[in-house]
Amino acid sequence: MSKLKISNRGREMPASPIRKLVPYAEAAKKRGTIVYHLNIGQPDIETPKMVLDAVRHSEFKILEYSHSAGNESYRKKLVQYYNQVGVQVTPEQIIITTGGSEAILFGFMACLDAGDEVIIPEPFYANYNGFAVEADVKVVPISSSIHNGFALPAIEEFEKAITPRTKAIIICNPNNPTGYLYSKEEMLVLKELVTKHNLYLFSDEAYREFCYEGEHFSAMQLEGIEDHVVLMDTISKRYSACGGRIGAFVTRNKALIETVMKFAQARLSPPSFAQIAGEAAVDLPADYFDETKAAYKSRRDLIVERLNAMPGVFCPNPGGAFYAMAQLPVDDADVFCQWLLESFEYQKQTVMMAPASGFYGTPGLGKQEVRLAYVLNESAIDRAMNCLEEALKVYPGRTN
Amino acid sequence: MSKLKISNRGREMPASPIRKLVPYAEAAKKRGTIVYHLNIGQPDIETPKMVLDAVRHSEFKILEYSHSAGNESYRKKLVQYYNQVGVQVTPEQIIITTGGSEAILFGFMACLDAGDEVIIPEPFYANYNGFAVEADVKVVPISSSIHNGFALPAIEEFEKAITPRTKAIIICNPNNPTGYLYSKEEMLVLKELVTKHNLYLFSDEAYREFCYEGEHFSAMQLEGIEDHVVLMDTISKRYSACGGRIGAFVTRNKALIETVMKFAQARLSPPSFAQIAGEAAVDLPADYFDETKAAYKSRRDLIVERLNAMPGVFCPNPGGAFYAMAQLPVDDADVFCQWLLESFEYQKQTVMMAPASGFYGTPGLGKQEVRLAYVLNESAIDRAMNCLEEALKVYPGRTN
Repeated sequence: MSKLKISNRGREMPASPIRKLVPYAEAAKKRGTIVYHLNIGQPDIETPKMVLDAVRHSEFKILEYSHSAGNESYRKKLVQYYNQVGVQVTPEQIIITTGGSEAILFGFMACLDAGDEVIIPEPFYANYNGFAVEADVKVVPISSSIHNGFALPAIEEFEKAITPRTKAIIICNPNNPTGYLYSKEEMLVLKELVTKHNLYLFSDEAYREFCYEGEHFSAMQLEGIEDHVVLMDTISKRYSACGGRIGAFVTRNKALIETVMKFAQARLSPPSFAQIAGEAAVDLPADYFDETKAAYKSRRDLIVERLNAMPGVFCPNPGGAFYAMAQLPVDDADVFCQWLLESFEYQKQTVMMAPASGFYGTPGLGKQEVRLAYVLNESAIDRAMNCLEEALKVYPGRTN
Repeated sequence: MSKLKISNRGREMPASPIRKLVPYAEAAKKRGTIVYHLNIGQPDIETPKMVLDAVRHSEFKILEYSHSAGNESYRKKLVQYYNQVGVQVTPEQIIITTGGSEAILFGFMACLDAGDEVIIPEPFYANYNGFAVEADVKVVPISSSIHNGFALPAIEEFEKAITPRTKAIIICNPNNPTGYLYSKEEMLVLKELVTKHNLYLFSDEAYREFCYEGEHFSAMQLEGIEDHVVLMDTISKRYSACGGRIGAFVTRNKALIETVMKFAQARLSPPSFAQIAGEAAVDLPADYFDETKAAYKSRRDLIVERLNAMPGVFCPNPGGAFYAMAQLPVDDADVFCQWLLESFEYQKQTVMMAPASGFYGTPGLGKQEVRLAYVLNESAIDRAMNCLEEALKVYPGRTN
């Protein structure tokens, strides 16, 4: 029986870089230590009651397959949502996906072949690696830096990385993990690049509503490159509805949407229950995002202030999403994050963060950086920062 | 802009073989013709109220990510379900998937590499082709025949097809599209094959409860080949819950489940709402399947009797699932099925069936065969059979 082999791609498939610390967090909790989870992007904000009620009050008798592209009523409603954020699309340009995850996988599958390359500014959302392994696509990272807040790398850096196998660029805007919000000028640089080199531009805009410095400029608003742009979207963060597993693949490229439709048909349909939730969410009152955005902004202000007040710590002010990246005066953030869970507590509490190394494609980068998701209330963030502050005073691997 | 290319796999991805007739059905309906849909496996049986109510009465406030393997409470409950059907597993041997579809994709990804081969008795569930394209796996069909009711091909036929690249065999039991129920003896032949040639055995048991002739024998009940067997399961047909998109990847192979867990983590979690439904379904009263099974059995008896009473038509009696395959006295079942929608009506009604060619991997096979899904009530089935009977009398391409 032991001769049976796991596939090479199964072996290459990366484990979640955050996941590996979970056993240490569980052990800490068993010892009675409170663990503040700043490690994952699971918001503590309640899903709007109206959105959950739409599902709870639904009246169908058969939980049927939906259309493979998602319910037509939902796609029509989404057109209304996109129009509100300045993006003009039709229902035929939208395929509802099982989370943003499936939109990414469909993009890789339909636009790239085995061995083709996708350029992604690093640090980047770690699961892009997983979908790249599934699609046998090579991720080519180009580095952005904490010292300028993770702005878009210079056009020359992209051009150095482009080869005949390069088929696409992915951006996440505002960015996970950096929180960086790309400016219109940066988006125009990307337009120039994808036009000149004939590339797809995959734009992951999961955090569109959460912008604190300036306006969001969608890749779908770039004119003249309609065939190049794919919007990869999700309701997960927008409405605190991560478990719904509803996203969208949006493009004006007709050949591409027809191709993706074949992938969508193979898996039959996206989840029916959460499509009802997503459709209801479009009718949330206009001030819904004002409130959630204000809540996240206060948290960001707090966490950035607390971090930068700690000796040796640097945290650029993130313009969007709900993540902050910080450089710490430690030898190795992976070791430090594990030590926080395994060997440290302050007033019976500790903090769990995501070491940044897992978000970089280039080995060795991000070794002193961590990602903090400000998905807890301000009082919890404050206590978490107290832990971090105290920990940095006593951590044996402190540098500086 | 036209220089942008769709990937080769995107072009190779097969469109749904059933889908192509949809525009003709829509046109028929627009003309006022009633169309009996025997073409797809969407049951008309109501989802048990208790199952839908579990979702409607759920009380959480945040629609959170579940565990990537699915809720622990659900996996524990599933252990109870599997024990009831004679399959001994633990919660750690189960990963909840987004429909049975994802279980199939995960199996291909984790067990096979690009260029590896999977043997499938044909005719087979057409979407296996789609997942094979995504995983760049080669489907090697070996033919089963309508003349012996689509029994498992002889062991020699498998052995002729096995090459050094063969990594797995897929069976669907009871079978979609044939309705064939594999016997324990046939399952033991498969055991011999996968042991001798060191292959995985993927067993799609979506229709487990719907067996009308003899007992279901699960691949998970084969002793001594625990590492070889993967059960690909779904709640879609069992509880008429297709839109939930909840399935399961089940194996006792520890290295394999650990590998699939990495794929599961990359897509974060299966849908939360329908996991609640799936968990509740395990507590349905013991007679739930008696009723649905009796309903399907009466329909089967009716459709098989009606079909075999038509001159020139042959329909073997299917032992399970809710599909029947019939050989028709027509030149080309694809043409005939389209003609039924486009050029025929009887008492302002017609019938939509799935031409079998889409279920065969070998070009040219199944040209006179159709699949009928008996997912309508007996009165509708009877009227649909009246249409078919009358149509065969006047179809210009009738053979004998």
